[in-house]
Amino acid sequence: MSAVHRLTLGDVLAEHARGRPAGAAVVDGDVRLTYPELDDRVARLAGALAAGGVEPGGRVLWLGQNSFRVLELLLACGRLGAIFCPANWRQSADELAHVLADLTPKVVVWEESEAVEKARGQVPLDARWLRSGEEYEAFLASGDPYLPEAADGGAPVLALYTAAFDGRPNAALLSHTALVAHSMALLHMRQMEDGFTFLACGPMFHVGTMMFTLATFQLGGRLVVTPAYEPDEVCRLIDAERCTQAFLFGPMIDGLVQANAGGKYDLSSLRFVSHSPEWDAMITVDDSPWCASGMGGYGQTEVGGMLTFLGLGMGGAGFAGRPSPLVHVRLLDADGREVPPGEVGEICARGHSLFSGYWNRPELNAAKAAGGWHHTGDLGRREADGTLTFVGPTLRMIKSANENIYPAEVERALKTHPSVADAAVIGVPDERFGQSPKAVVVLKDGAEATAEQIVEHVRGEIASYKKPREVVFVESIPKRGHTPDYDALDAAHGGGAYPGA
Amino acid sequence: MSAVHRLTLGDVLAEHARGRPAGAAVVDGDVRLTYPELDDRVARLAGALAAGGVEPGGRVLWLGQNSFRVLELLLACGRLGAIFCPANWRQSADELAHVLADLTPKVVVWEESEAVEKARGQVPLDARWLRSGEEYEAFLASGDPYLPEAADGGAPVLALYTAAFDGRPNAALLSHTALVAHSMALLHMRQMEDGFTFLACGPMFHVGTMMFTLATFQLGGRLVVTPAYEPDEVCRLIDAERCTQAFLFGPMIDGLVQANAGGKYDLSSLRFVSHSPEWDAMITVDDSPWCASGMGGYGQTEVGGMLTFLGLGMGGAGFAGRPSPLVHVRLLDADGREVPPGEVGEICARGHSLFSGYWNRPELNAAKAAGGWHHTGDLGRREADGTLTFVGPTLRMIKSANENIYPAEVERALKTHPSVADAAVIGVPDERFGQSPKAVVVLKDGAEATAEQIVEHVRGEIASYKKPREVVFVESIPKRGHTPDYDALDAAHGGGAYPGA
Repeated sequence: MSAVHRLTLGDVLAEHARGRPAGAAVVDGDVRLTYPELDDRVARLAGALAAGGVEPGGRVLWLGQNSFRVLELLLACGRLGAIFCPANWRQSADELAHVLADLTPKVVVWEESEAVEKARGQVPLDARWLRSGEEYEAFLASGDPYLPEAADGGAPVLALYTAAFDGRPNAALLSHTALVAHSMALLHMRQMEDGFTFLACGPMFHVGTMMFTLATFQLGGRLVVTPAYEPDEVCRLIDAERCTQAFLFGPMIDGLVQANAGGKYDLSSLRFVSHSPEWDAMITVDDSPWCASGMGGYGQTEVGGMLTFLGLGMGGAGFAGRPSPLVHVRLLDADGREVPPGEVGEICARGHSLFSGYWNRPELNAAKAAGGWHHTGDLGRREADGTLTFVGPTLRMIKSANENIYPAEVERALKTHPSVADAAVIGVPDERFGQSPKAVVVLKDGAEATAEQIVEHVRGEIASYKKPREVVFVESIPKRGHTPDYDALDAAHGGGAYPGA
Repeated sequence: MSAVHRLTLGDVLAEHARGRPAGAAVVDGDVRLTYPELDDRVARLAGALAAGGVEPGGRVLWLGQNSFRVLELLLACGRLGAIFCPANWRQSADELAHVLADLTPKVVVWEESEAVEKARGQVPLDARWLRSGEEYEAFLASGDPYLPEAADGGAPVLALYTAAFDGRPNAALLSHTALVAHSMALLHMRQMEDGFTFLACGPMFHVGTMMFTLATFQLGGRLVVTPAYEPDEVCRLIDAERCTQAFLFGPMIDGLVQANAGGKYDLSSLRFVSHSPEWDAMITVDDSPWCASGMGGYGQTEVGGMLTFLGLGMGGAGFAGRPSPLVHVRLLDADGREVPPGEVGEICARGHSLFSGYWNRPELNAAKAAGGWHHTGDLGRREADGTLTFVGPTLRMIKSANENIYPAEVERALKTHPSVADAAVIGVPDERFGQSPKAVVVLKDGAEATAEQIVEHVRGEIASYKKPREVVFVESIPKRGHTPDYDALDAAHGGGAYPGA
């Protein structure tokens, strides 16, 4: 790729500074910056960071609530070829200490927090710690404007912690090119038009809020930032800033409906997904492919946000829709062979919006990119009409009579039984088959079902060899986050002999 | 860029073959192909081309009317890493001979034409000539399916002849990545949704039709092909195939209104730009940013189609709008320095949709990419609100007292005088200043104006140093195509002493 093809986030900013000289770039409390003002601040900030020892490839960490500074730190790091990471500051001191030790940032910008102070004490770092606010502003003001772009589009610029495969999160690295590509997919699906105003009221360290923040920036739209979701303040900002979109889902929307019950605020500028009669009456229901479909699709941080959109397969059999126009998806088995339509395989992908691997995880990265395909770690199925269904996380695999059985697929089938409240599947050693699947089932209050009935039900849903050989009924299933605690289940119910174990 | 980031046109096709197993890909006369059928044909065609000696970097030429074969040849060449060129078959035998000698294709697919036969006789080539139709079909059927992708996204895949700088056209090379990027910009601006059906009724060798052909393919939409614009047939196809868009502009639209005067065809599926009350009543007027703005913007083949969109600057001062989100534009002077807003400079760009240079023109390519910016050869101005105005082609420059003066800018100012029908500006040798601008002016029938009045008018429009020192009135201005014949004007009116000449 020659210089003529370069498009870094810095190039995007440089264009907006010229193309939108009076255009508001960010609004955050009393702070209102036009694109030229943002460009000036980013140049100074990049200069200060460079003077502070941040080199190409170096890391800068943000530990705080939402702030316009998250965007300007990202852009300043991009200019230097450095990597910016906004991390979840609500983690425990131990978790934050892991992030500090893993990322070894040269500069940390932070907001008041006991856990952060404790983590700082635990991990000795050669880093400059800056409090967001006056200390940060003085630092920025000290910088000599740094104008050249050190990075090309392929350089990683954003790190987002995610994917705790081994109990500790990993930082997914996203390049300028990947972020620009993903933004284009969102611009298309959400039909983001000139004048788009996004309210970042979800956490900016999460890809769900970050992806719309970046698409808004890509378009030269306006980013309105609020430190965190607070229903009355979110209503006030939508009204005052005429926001066209915000980061919201079910319970957050209910909170806004309640906060605006008297109709105190005019929320009609918001074009968003239909939710309830009260909500639909307050806003403008959006008919773009992003919202008309109920905001469905499948995604993860490692693909920049969304890999598939329901809006590209509305009315189709698979509730994850079809892939973004910038990616190619295949469903592969454990040996890297494509599985036929209707069969479950790991969702694998390639394309312009994919990440550049995890920070500091060479072995994991090699495994995730095996055969030139990104392995999402999630299971999916291509339906007969070509649309995709997300089945569940891979987590582990059972090997029975040389066939691969993914617990998530069997659990999904179990849960469609009308008497089943919850279910998990483990592999138990089997002399003849190596392993065989065993179901651990919680029945609904007052419901009844025999093991035979449940096995028969599963056999009607998926291939017969995947049905449980045994069913055990329990009161509840131990969880680790949202997923079954398989280690505890194995210990309690005789699991073992997993492939590769 | 690693394998995980690859997205060739072949990857896009492979995804559609899985994601749209029953989806119509192309309709052309009696031919109707689903995506899996297109995928199969492309594999066979690639195999036949490889067996016929087409290697990575090799060229395949199409000389004929519109056909679905244009798309499948492009995709087959992409799979081999070869370059496909659909050329204007209505050119003279001499012009076609230039294309043959310049491109030296290994395979030529052609339709009956005297000029093509004559050109073939003039240029001895080690090429296989295939008549479109049975001969082509037999060739395709002979191919063993060729499945691997030889190309990465950065490889050029499409060559379109354009830009006759020296009287002979040059073939602009566009890579997979550039075509995918440009398609994303169109998908966004035109709000192309699932089910989009494009009728290619303009010439597919021209970027205007090709860019929508490719965006439709990128989305997994349906391409309807007709050999050439024929009003009744275009109406019939829009009705029968429920086309959502077609390649149309002013006079073509008038032709459709006339052909459908009795309301014989239902054109309501077409979502297109407003044109006349009769037209607007026949179709669905589209309110996407592409159509709401009157389909404005600035583009050229070398940027993949559109560089700027009026839909990103509606209501702005500059009628070219703002750049696509995938490019960065600067207005540079002859020394590569940026000119301030309000001043005219050459429109220069970088970004994902830019071409990879011209085929076989290393010196021209180096000049066009000077300083890491693509030089469009066109003049523009950044207005105070950041929007862009296209001023005219650079063509040549006058150097007066060390200042650069572009004839197109002065001509534009001259033509705003109410008495002026046409105008051209040349540079004449000037002992003191090196050169000075001289205006050659055609007055409107019956209108009067003195040289002094005209010079005064120009001085009110642009910087004083750019005003003509002399004005000569003539009956008409000699033209070469749409632009003044500057060589003839120099000879007739004493032009000369141009910088670099």
